[in-house]
This record gives sequence, structure tokens and C-alpha cells, in this order.
Amino acid sequence: MSLGIVFLSEVFGTAMLTLLGCGVVANVALRGTKGNSGGFLMVTWGWGIAVFAGVFVAAKSGAHLNPAVTLGLLINGKAEYAPDVPVDVASTLTYFAGEMVGAFLGAVVCWLAYKQHFDTEEAAASKLGVFSTGPAIRSTPWNLVTEIIGTFVLVFVILTFGGTPSGLGPLAVALLVVGIGVSLGGPTGYAINPARDLGPRIAHALLPIKGKGSSDWSYSWIPVVGPLVGGALGGIVAKIAPIIITAAA
Amino acid sequence: MSLGIVFLSEVFGTAMLTLLGCGVVANVALRGTKGNSGGFLMVTWGWGIAVFAGVFVAAKSGAHLNPAVTLGLLINGKAEYAPDVPVDVASTLTYFAGEMVGAFLGAVVCWLAYKQHFDTEEAAASKLGVFSTGPAIRSTPWNLVTEIIGTFVLVFVILTFGGTPSGLGPLAVALLVVGIGVSLGGPTGYAINPARDLGPRIAHALLPIKGKGSSDWSYSWIPVVGPLVGGALGGIVAKIAPIIITAAA
Amino acid sequence: MSLGIVFLSEVFGTAMLTLLGCGVVANVALRGTKGNSGGFLMVTWGWGIAVFAGVFVAAKSGAHLNPAVTLGLLINGKAEYAPDVPVDVASTLTYFAGEMVGAFLGAVVCWLAYKQHFDTEEAAASKLGVFSTGPAIRSTPWNLVTEIIGTFVLVFVILTFGGTPSGLGPLAVALLVVGIGVSLGGPTGYAINPARDLGPRIAHALLPIKGKGSSDWSYSWIPVVGPLVGGALGGIVAKIAPIIITAAA
Amino acid sequence: MSLGIVFLSEVFGTAMLTLLGCGVVANVALRGTKGNSGGFLMVTWGWGIAVFAGVFVAAKSGAHLNPAVTLGLLINGKAEYAPDVPVDVASTLTYFAGEMVGAFLGAVVCWLAYKQHFDTEEAAASKLGVFSTGPAIRSTPWNLVTEIIGTFVLVFVILTFGGTPSGLGPLAVALLVVGIGVSLGGPTGYAINPARDLGPRIAHALLPIKGKGSSDWSYSWIPVVGPLVGGALGGIVAKIAPIIITAAA
Repeated sequence: MSLGIVFLSEVFGTAMLTLLGCGVVANVALRGTKGNSGGFLMVTWGWGIAVFAGVFVAAKSGAHLNPAVTLGLLINGKAEYAPDVPVDVASTLTYFAGEMVGAFLGAVVCWLAYKQHFDTEEAAASKLGVFSTGPAIRSTPWNLVTEIIGTFVLVFVILTFGGTPSGLGPLAVALLVVGIGVSLGGPTGYAINPARDLGPRIAHALLPIKGKGSSDWSYSWIPVVGPLVGGALGGIVAKIAPIIITAAA
Repeated sequence: MSLGIVFLSEVFGTAMLTLLGCGVVANVALRGTKGNSGGFLMVTWGWGIAVFAGVFVAAKSGAHLNPAVTLGLLINGKAEYAPDVPVDVASTLTYFAGEMVGAFLGAVVCWLAYKQHFDTEEAAASKLGVFSTGPAIRSTPWNLVTEIIGTFVLVFVILTFGGTPSGLGPLAVALLVVGIGVSLGGPTGYAINPARDLGPRIAHALLPIKGKGSSDWSYSWIPVVGPLVGGALGGIVAKIAPIIITAAA
Repeated sequence: MSLGIVFLSEVFGTAMLTLLGCGVVANVALRGTKGNSGGFLMVTWGWGIAVFAGVFVAAKSGAHLNPAVTLGLLINGKAEYAPDVPVDVASTLTYFAGEMVGAFLGAVVCWLAYKQHFDTEEAAASKLGVFSTGPAIRSTPWNLVTEIIGTFVLVFVILTFGGTPSGLGPLAVALLVVGIGVSLGGPTGYAINPARDLGPRIAHALLPIKGKGSSDWSYSWIPVVGPLVGGALGGIVAKIAPIIITAAA
Repeated sequence: MSLGIVFLSEVFGTAMLTLLGCGVVANVALRGTKGNSGGFLMVTWGWGIAVFAGVFVAAKSGAHLNPAVTLGLLINGKAEYAPDVPVDVASTLTYFAGEMVGAFLGAVVCWLAYKQHFDTEEAAASKLGVFSTGPAIRSTPWNLVTEIIGTFVLVFVILTFGGTPSGLGPLAVALLVVGIGVSLGGPTGYAINPARDLGPRIAHALLPIKGKGSSDWSYSWIPVVGPLVGGALGGIVAKIAPIIITAAA
């Protein structure tokens, strides 16, 4: 498969992810929406089904939708990212680029869908919250720890899906993302995906959003670095665990 | 398959859709019900499972249940709407007619199920809200934009289901509808289906509902035109995307 | 299969149904529980998964768990209630008996699980509500209408499951029951099953529940007759619809 | 399969279980989190998906994740705990050890993920509640009864899964755990797993948690003994029921 296909597939899939994912936050957080104050459980279902839809859309390229997943597969030592997509520098960068462009575009469309509610909402923090995550309690080391743990769970469990046949298809990863959200999303809002956080943050910075405040760049590297570390750890442990286990055997 | 079968199949399926879909809104919005103030997440599960049940009921005709889906398939260039149902003017009009009649009938039965609560409820707006959608903030262009985006997601993702085998059957589209609801339903209440909105609105206008107010005809064309445009776009993009991708390859 | 197997299978399955189903109402309604005021959506998930578990447990006998389902299958003209269980008077009565005994036993175990909370709760109505349904607005004709519609949906859609292959197994009927709950449960609390309502009501009448009030026998026939009529209608329509459709063809 | 593999597999799977399970309680109960006061339904989805993820991770060893499940399989008379893992004293103790160590480790990681919120939270009871269950109304006999009933349902229904083919894989047990939570979790918080309760309680006792209070050791044996009794009963009844049924036939 050509890298052009991979790029476009990841663009479409990741755009679907952030359109629906940012959308549910807009519905819960912005003034005057029908889902206002719909609760954290609703947010997590929104992001879970956002992944679900994105996986269908990007099925051709293996639906990474997330640089931390791409990195986890790389470090795990997979031979292919998807059928006929070898793991090399060019394909890795193509995934990263598609994921970032898609995440940016999905956030732009989300803004259009909720345009009037962005105009009506007065709290700048609520507007940024639609695009990107922020910590409940700001602390560089502990925010990193939480993002690392959450992304480790995502990548490690995805890498174990292969070993347990089920008819669930994309529903398995969707439920996993709901679970990470409700269980590990409390401290940082579970970016667990550098593109999901940085792409929309760039959109927030560039779009002419009425009354928007800071894009909080000082925090922006944490939901990039944390998930990359967590994804890499997930890939390593999923590789090493069977080796240790075999040695133990 | 004869068009009579198609018509009846879509009537039954779309009636099931609006019976259960309008029903959950009645449960949440009308006075004195057991699910009163049950929240937006409950509404979206109700509509999602309404689609789920409708798809089983109308499986024979491919379970469009929605003129925007029919139009999307037409524009996508499908050869058949369902096994042995060729795409032509007569079949297209048959789907539209079955969807409209079914949506109307389901809303009538919903009114019967909640008859006493319609009688007890005092707010006319709550009664209309059971039947048809209305905007959180009224604006012709932006309400159209939101309905177009929501329906684009519906039709585009449905058209990609075929490419990703899963054992989910009708659950996939049900979850997608839950997701569109929680994520894109905030500004307009996600009609994303002209029949789902117009059929029940006609029922609202014709039924002897105690203390009912206006059927809000001035808004009524938006949840018809918006979804049709969105569905057509979904059909086009699902057609063009692979062509672009192949060219890129 | 012997009728003894059918009887015991339905006893176990329907006991599982009312244990978990009455349990979620106890958790939401009784004083001092951890799920107190958990909301209507939680109640509907509880009953949905109660059906899910009951279907697994009673798989051998086809898991009717509900006289309205048994009656619907009878009227639909099925040759067998389950593999090797012919439809006749003896088997029909065996299903009814197993369903009633099971529903009674499950409610007794539920009472044991929540014994202290029954003792602490002061409102007699809340205690009866754990066992049996009651109307939001009392009205013989309209309460009947609502129960008939709800049970019609249950039986009619179950009878269409066979026509749409899916890998969902018991999850399909579980989701359907969640959907009927959120969408049609508002006026009467969706008995949609004579055994589910009457069996626990008898338990309520016989058990030494502290501070219990009336078992509301004046209402008790509605959640029996309504579901039986609705189930019969579901069986008839599922039978006639294809015939009409074929004639239309 | 060697017992070393079994041990490590259960450690990883049970750690995933308590990381996500304790995590959702932390999110709902600790001060300042994004999911604060998210409700009991969110807690039950969190634990359900925790089981879901744990089952994938520990698939190799049959994913018991719970001494009550191991005991239920033993008493049921299974020849193997998992493919190539015979049922004997050594394998049984290996499962118990892996489950306990994993449950302990997952709770430690959960504490790290929510470190700042443990530091900010003032109520010692909320902190212990993240790790271990406690009764809504304290009573040795009735708390035992509730835990026995809940665990009986878990083990008994799991043992019937085999008889009903479905494509749900680990989703079936996840939904069952959600159902036990919403329906039977009201009085004691549904430990239904000795390792899930005791492992994190030991972690609570050992970790330097700021402002932690008692680990409530006086209650600690109930969520161990109750689930073991319930699991054993589930294994017995699942064994005896078919025999009685065959005799009845």
C-alpha cells in the first residue's frame, strides 16, 4: 500500500476521532447546548465511540489514529504497521503526519458544528477544554505519570487483543478507551494521544474563536511526551513480557 | 424483491425507530414520567437502540429508515439499495414514502403510550420536542451546518462499515447514532434524518394533543434539507475518497 | 428434551432475571445503598443485563423467561419452543410455571441481598417498587395501552432477530430491553412480562418484610393482561406481516 | 503450560483489573478530579471494562483474575484451569498467588496515577474506598449474604457461558460484572473477589498515603470469605443443576 493511502486514511480517521471527541466536550461544556452538564460518563462514551468510528474509517491503514500507538508498534518490533505497510522511517513519519493533520481538521469541523455555542460561552477555559486537555491539578511530574500510565494501558491492551479472538472488532478498542477515560481520566483528562491534543490545540491557536484565551502552550508538551513514553513502554512490555514468561517456563 | 415489500419493510422499521426514539424524549421531558430528567445520555441511548431495533425489523429492505441514507447510497453510485432492489426512481421514491409513513405512524403510537403524560404536561414546547427537533440557538445557516455535519458522519461511516468485517451487525450503526447524539447533538438535537423529523411533526400537527402549541413549521425545512445535503456529501466523499487515494497511490 | 428440564431451566433463568432486575431497583430506591438515586438509565441497564444473564442461564429451554414471549411464539405458530420442545398444552404450561416459580424465587433472594436496606427504608411504596411495577398515573385503559405497546415491541423484534444474522447472541435482547425501558418505561415502569411482575408481587405479599404496605393487588392484573395481549399481538403481526408483504409482492 | 506463565499472566491481568477498577472509584470519590461525583453507573462501567481489559491481558491462563473463580472451577470439577493447566494443589495456589500479587500491584499504580488527588482529599474514608470495599450498613451476617449472592451469580453465570455460543468474548463477563454492580452492589460495594479487595487493602496499609486512616481490618475478612463461599456455591450448583435436570428428565 502506498504511503499516500496511509496518509489519507489516517487523516480521515483521526479527523473523525477529534470531530466526535471534541464534540462531546463541546456538548457538555459550552453554554446553551442540549447536552450541557451531561456528565463525565457521557464524555467518555463520546470519546469511545469517536475511536470506534475513526477505526472503521481508517481501517485500510490499520487505524492507528495516535502517534503513541504507532510508536508502540514500532518499539514492539512489528514488521508491518498494516497489511503491506512496512515499518520504516518514511511510513512512521507518514503516520505521524496523517494523525496530526487529521486531528487538526476534525477540531476545525467541531468548531463549525458548535460555532454559536462558542460565541455564546463566556469562559475561555471551557473553550480551550473542547480542543485540548488540561490538568485538574497542575504538576509536571505527576501529570506526566498519569498520561504515561493511561497510554501504557491503551497500547499494551491493544497489543494483547490479537491473542484473544472475539467478534467485537473496533468495539474492543472503543470500550477500552471508555474504560481508560472513566478510570484514569480524572487527573489530566486522558489525552493518551499526542495528535488528539496537539492538533486541536493548534486549531485553537489559529481559529478566530470569539473570546478565546490562551492555548496554554506551557502545558502542551505534557500530553505529547507523556503518551509517547507510555506508548513506548506499552510496546516494550508487550514484547518483553512473553520473553520473560517463556524464560520462566 | 417487489417495491411493496420494500415499502412495508421501511414502514415497519421506521415506525419502530420513531416509536422508541420519540419515546425516550417523552420519558425524559414530559411531566410525571418515571424517567423524568433522565439526562441527555439516556436520550442518546434511547435513539441508538431505536435504530438498533428498526434495523432488525427492516432488514429485508436494507433498513435505510432515513431518506438521507437512501440519498447517500444513490449518490454513492450503489447498484442496489438492498439485495434485488435496483437503484432507480421508483425504488428511491418507495424508500422515501415508506420512511415518511413509518416515521409518522411510530410517533402516533408513541403519543398513545404517553397519552396521560401529554395531558398532564403544561409546556407546549416539551410536547413538540417529543416529536421533532428544535435548535438550542436559532440560526438558519449554523443550524444547517450542524445538521449537515452530523448526517455526513452518519452516512459516511455507514458506507465504510462494509470495509471492516465485524460481528456487530446492527450494533455498529446503533453505537454510531449514540456517538453522533452525544457529540454533535448539542446545537440542534441531531435530526440527521428528514423522515424522523418531518413525519412526527406532521403527526404533531394532526393529532388532537391537549394543549399543544405550534408545530414550528418555520424551522421544519432545516432538519429536512440539512440531512439531505449531509447524506449526499457523505455519499460523494465515500465515493471520491478511494479514487483520490488510488490516484495518490 | 423433557419438560422437567424445561421447567428447571426456566426457573433458574427467570430467577436470575428477577434477582438482578429487582436488585437494581433496590439499589436505586432503598435508603442508604451505594447506588441510591442512581437514575433511570442505571435501572434500565440493570434490567437489560438481568435479561442477558438469564438468557445464558436458561439457554437450554430457549430462555423465554416471560409468559408473553411463550404466548407470542405459540400464536406465531412456531413448531418448537426450543430444540426438541414441541409446542403443545403441556409444554406451554410448563414454561408458564417455570417462569412464575423462578420470578418468585429471584425476588426472594433479592430481598435477602438487600435485607438491611429494606429494614431501614421507611417508604412502603419504595419497598413494593423493588418487587413490582406501578403506574406513574393510574388509569386502567392507558396503563394497559402502554404495557401492550411495550410488550409488542419486545416480542415482535425478538421474532425478527432470526432474520438478521449477528454475533451478538443474548446481547441483542438485552439491548432491546434497555431500549424498551428508556423509551417506553416512563408511564408504567415496563413490566412487559407477567411473571416478572406477578411472581415478585406474590413474594412481597408472603415475605415478612418490615414495614411493608399493600401489595397493590388492584393494579396487579394490568401487568399480566397487558403483556399477554402485547405478546400475542407481537406474535400475530410477526406472522401476518410477511404474508401481507408477500401478497403485496 | 508452566506455572510460571500462569503466575505472570494472572499478575498482569489482575493488576490491570485493579488499576482500572480502583481508578474509577478514585475518579468519582477523590477531591478535584474531572469525574468527581460521576455516579454509581460510571463506577460499574469502570469495573466492567477493568475486567474486560484484564481478561484480554490474562487470556493465556484463562483469566481467572479472582480466587473465587478459581475455587468455583475447582469445585465444579473442571479437569483444566486453562488449556494445558491441570487442576491440582500447585496450580490452584499459583492462581491465588498471581491474583493477589497482581491486585496489590494494580492498586499501587492507581495510587500513583491519582497521587495528587490522594494528597488533596481530606476524608480518610474516601481514600480507603478507592482501594477496598466497605459496607453501607455494617452487619457481619448480612454483608456476608450479599457478597455470597453476588459472587454466586458471577461464577454460576460464567460457568454457563460455555453453553451459549456468542461472538462476545470478554464482553460477556464485562457486562455481567456491570450487572452485578448495579444490581447487587448496593449493600457492600460488590467485592465479589477476595484478591480485588485484600490486595489493594494491603497496598493501602503499606503505602505512604497522606492522611490515610485505618485499613478497616475488622471488615477485611468478609470480602474474602463471602466471595469464596459464593464462588464455591456457584461451582457446586453449576455442577449439580444439570445432574438434577437429567434426573428430572
